[in-house]
Amino acid sequence: MDTLDHIRVVLVEPEHPGNIGAAARAMANMGLRHLVLVAPVDFPSPVARARASGSGTLEHARVVETLDEAITDCTLVIAASARTRTIAWPRKTPELAMRDLAINKGPAAIVFGRESTGLTNDELDRCHLQTRIPVDEAFSSLNLGCAVGVLLYELRRQALAGSVPSDGPDVESDPCSAAEMRLFHDHLGTVLDKSDPEGRFSNRLRQMIRIFNRASLQASELRLLRGFLSSLEAKLGATNEPR
Amino acid sequence: MDTLDHIRVVLVEPEHPGNIGAAARAMANMGLRHLVLVAPVDFPSPVARARASGSGTLEHARVVETLDEAITDCTLVIAASARTRTIAWPRKTPELAMRDLAINKGPAAIVFGRESTGLTNDELDRCHLQTRIPVDEAFSSLNLGCAVGVLLYELRRQALAGSVPSDGPDVESDPCSAAEMRLFHDHLGTVLDKSDPEGRFSNRLRQMIRIFNRASLQASELRLLRGFLSSLEAKLGATNEPR
Repeated sequence: MDTLDHIRVVLVEPEHPGNIGAAARAMANMGLRHLVLVAPVDFPSPVARARASGSGTLEHARVVETLDEAITDCTLVIAASARTRTIAWPRKTPELAMRDLAINKGPAAIVFGRESTGLTNDELDRCHLQTRIPVDEAFSSLNLGCAVGVLLYELRRQALAGSVPSDGPDVESDPCSAAEMRLFHDHLGTVLDKSDPEGRFSNRLRQMIRIFNRASLQASELRLLRGFLSSLEAKLGATNEPR
Repeated sequence: MDTLDHIRVVLVEPEHPGNIGAAARAMANMGLRHLVLVAPVDFPSPVARARASGSGTLEHARVVETLDEAITDCTLVIAASARTRTIAWPRKTPELAMRDLAINKGPAAIVFGRESTGLTNDELDRCHLQTRIPVDEAFSSLNLGCAVGVLLYELRRQALAGSVPSDGPDVESDPCSAAEMRLFHDHLGTVLDKSDPEGRFSNRLRQMIRIFNRASLQASELRLLRGFLSSLEAKLGATNEPR
């Protein structure tokens, strides 16, 4: 993954110190370090410190007076907006906006407004584009800390999408060969026949094979299952012909 | 978008009422209504009510004593896990896990553990799969309310992305409930003990449960496996105590 170190989070006049702390913690979770607070109402604060939960982001936060100071060197500035407005600013979905941010080379910022009133039109004019989390219109009021967490998750997801397979196997993946699976199938068939010679379930071996195929067995799991089948076989006795 | 009304959020023994409130608010933001609290440490609480911010979810929360009660009718149960474990449970990325959840037809649950210690191994055994938000390893401790917000955002994103899954379950999907799976696990444990009383394979029941969870059994397959276990049990004889 490309580092996200060129991206800062800007909170404009945050009203509740708990949200500053929650934002700082979410930043550390998602691999961001640069927090800028524009004229915070209550900072520093023990409440913010408690909610930041030792993440370290808070201690290095920059406090400035205006949004312009916070973003002056940025080549891309994205506003997180909660509201729909009559005059439409350029807007992208979180996926597209965070992808832009992840691949932008220069310093960049994601800007969050006040809990009560968001960003002013003047502040939105400073931003290249807006993004909005697609909340349920029936209850659209997002907590500020939650909004930071969600957008930074999306940012990290976009950054990771470039380098890491999205659905790779577990680290210690140790798959079975087709030959090993074939032996397991034979073994399973033998035990099935011994346990129930009348074969009340039609197609039962095939159905079971399908279950185990779907589970994509690891070699260690196959050994476990083979061990179980061997124990069963010993207990069931050699009453049938070997297959 | 398909409704997400069949999906419940389960918080297991949440320790801080603020997080219950934050989860309730995030649920309302993302269009979910059914919150189940398993043995909450401090509930009802004015702190939870304040953080829920009038979302309405909290007032209808169900309080139960055990995880089993919370998920008994669910056909898909996904655990949100913060930790990497030595024995790998079936795991999917948030994208894939939340897509599974969005397209699952029956009642389904997403389960979050305690703030301090997460979910126990026994609780994880009740879940079909795990998902983990890809946090920065340098500071991986996610706030519970934030984790709920992020995963429900992903769920909503998947639900909004359209209802044409490329690799959804089979057409004639007929999934098993958590209660049926529980009975199967018990039956499997009984037969394992009878077949190999010395228990040469440590952790064998848990590993086998994991294999079958990963396969997302259909009801007909469960009947087949139960029939196989019954045949084995009859042949092995009643040499052990019933469990």
